[in-house]
Amino acid sequence: MTGMPQYPELDTPCAVVDLDIVDRNIESYQAYCDKHGIGLRPHIKTHKIPAFAAQQMKAGAIGITCQKIGEAEVMADAGLDDILLTYNVLGERKLARLRALFDRIKSLRVVADNAVVVEGLSRAFADSAKPLEILIECDTGGGRCGVQNPAEAVELAKKIQSLPGVKFIGLMTYPATGGGAKVEAFFTSAMKELDAIGLECPVRSSGGTPDMWLAHEVPSVTEHRIGTYIYNDRSLMARGVCKEDDCALRVLTEIVSLPTPGRAIIDAGSKVLTSDLLGLDGYGYVVGHPDVAVKALSEEHGILHFDPATKPFEIGQRIEIIPNHVCVVSNMLDQVHLVRNGDIETVDVAARGCVL
Amino acid sequence: MTGMPQYPELDTPCAVVDLDIVDRNIESYQAYCDKHGIGLRPHIKTHKIPAFAAQQMKAGAIGITCQKIGEAEVMADAGLDDILLTYNVLGERKLARLRALFDRIKSLRVVADNAVVVEGLSRAFADSAKPLEILIECDTGGGRCGVQNPAEAVELAKKIQSLPGVKFIGLMTYPATGGGAKVEAFFTSAMKELDAIGLECPVRSSGGTPDMWLAHEVPSVTEHRIGTYIYNDRSLMARGVCKEDDCALRVLTEIVSLPTPGRAIIDAGSKVLTSDLLGLDGYGYVVGHPDVAVKALSEEHGILHFDPATKPFEIGQRIEIIPNHVCVVSNMLDQVHLVRNGDIETVDVAARGCVL
Repeated sequence: MTGMPQYPELDTPCAVVDLDIVDRNIESYQAYCDKHGIGLRPHIKTHKIPAFAAQQMKAGAIGITCQKIGEAEVMADAGLDDILLTYNVLGERKLARLRALFDRIKSLRVVADNAVVVEGLSRAFADSAKPLEILIECDTGGGRCGVQNPAEAVELAKKIQSLPGVKFIGLMTYPATGGGAKVEAFFTSAMKELDAIGLECPVRSSGGTPDMWLAHEVPSVTEHRIGTYIYNDRSLMARGVCKEDDCALRVLTEIVSLPTPGRAIIDAGSKVLTSDLLGLDGYGYVVGHPDVAVKALSEEHGILHFDPATKPFEIGQRIEIIPNHVCVVSNMLDQVHLVRNGDIETVDVAARGCVL
Repeated sequence: MTGMPQYPELDTPCAVVDLDIVDRNIESYQAYCDKHGIGLRPHIKTHKIPAFAAQQMKAGAIGITCQKIGEAEVMADAGLDDILLTYNVLGERKLARLRALFDRIKSLRVVADNAVVVEGLSRAFADSAKPLEILIECDTGGGRCGVQNPAEAVELAKKIQSLPGVKFIGLMTYPATGGGAKVEAFFTSAMKELDAIGLECPVRSSGGTPDMWLAHEVPSVTEHRIGTYIYNDRSLMARGVCKEDDCALRVLTEIVSLPTPGRAIIDAGSKVLTSDLLGLDGYGYVVGHPDVAVKALSEEHGILHFDPATKPFEIGQRIEIIPNHVCVVSNMLDQVHLVRNGDIETVDVAARGCVL
């Protein structure tokens, strides 16, 4: 596409992140949360970069969300000191790491959805000066983790309150898209039952980028966890949640072969774009070429299909692809390139690959 | 499953690699290639570990295959000195790296499927004491890179021979599964046309694990490139190429939640198992539990579905999963754990993430 930056300084495939778009995405959703009195707790899984987490905090976030202890450790090392770990932590070594992290930052909370996890947490924090605060994960239709109904939430809250070292602090859910009403029904019902037995439930945490602009329609929620909004991606474009100009991360890739009319091969495959489809056709959106399909990926090759009567590409030409699912792309790359006004800064994706 | 190793020394999710199975896989395919007079050139993309490449060489391989220069550099640093790089190399920086690698190892060959790539290679090697040997990549039905017919191959071979610093050495293809007859037709036709103009074509390279046991039915082929056979995976089990006992790499993962009858949540998601389906249902095979489906993955969670009347799992229990596509799993992990007779050795996946 004429005029598209070609970044001759960079080798392909790689990811470029437009900092002006990042700024706008952070600021606009912070403004929305501020307006509606919702605490914004960004999920670092999308960027995995401490500097972006710090920028989110500076903009007004109440804390950050991590999924794995390894991610939280990376963020804590960089000074992020209010972390919600939305994962059932099990096992003595992981519990010891959790405790060590808890002891060195201002606030670390976790979630749990079953008694085995709660008992492990209690053992690890039994001698802690301040208790570990636990949110109970609730399945409000997402079909992943979570207690299945308010009665189970109340039972688990009572269990937490009966054990040393831990304290029940609230409810957490990762809802299905469009599931706001179910969240509200679950949370308000559980809050009523908890109140009836004298248990306070000050934190009600929901999340997700697809329904980000509908968060205010779930009044019981006190905080919203959201990751993808900082970069956005093709799946959110397809849902109408963002526009192409809101997509901050693009995969820069080069045409390496034009074997036959209607087909081009790029040097970005599943090792960069991943096989995540998220219900879409094809593996990304080719910027400036809405009619070109990213038809298939092997590990190091992407196969573009287009009208054989057209010649949109030359060998060596660079194109940008907005990935289907940007969070998983971040996880494929040791580094990304931050761009603003023609300047490029290369930074490590510090929390990449932290699955433990 | 009773009796399955639980590896209490390891944290989950992770990958364990059974070295006895690795040995058997390497030896049995080397024996097949030796019997049929086929040069075996293993593709390191599956393991990305220099020690395994060295083991493949020691067993009798004629050299190794890499896809990207970064992978080849890692292997060369470890002493692997006969490498075929099956990729169109473009761009001055990559060409300079290719030249530097060429100058320090015994043999480095590349492929090309178009004149732009060939001209770049010639520029980078014009002053080389010995020429860079190039194989022409041929599309024999795979629909990825490659010249489209023998006439195009001959044209490109003539182009190579007309340029300084480069030498035409043969033909290369990555065929479609079941495409042996097409490879044979393409190669023999191209060889005849090349012979007619006095061009020697000593190397004819094909590849792929799915048809690994049919390689001898393509007599024109002098070398076979193959990656997955060292570990094997669920896709090859489904094709009947290997059995469960031939699968050397398993993802060790833990049940972290049992939210409802018929559903269990594991701590391995797409950040370990990846979203590669390879035409299969579900995201892996749960060892010992053929009726359990790995129904869905998010980044850090896997969702298992099973008969709600059964209770196959407990929270904290460990299971092993044979992934759909093992090569991409290797690429997700900084380290893997090699096991033999109860001993565990943890090694770096040294060429992980080398997309440049």
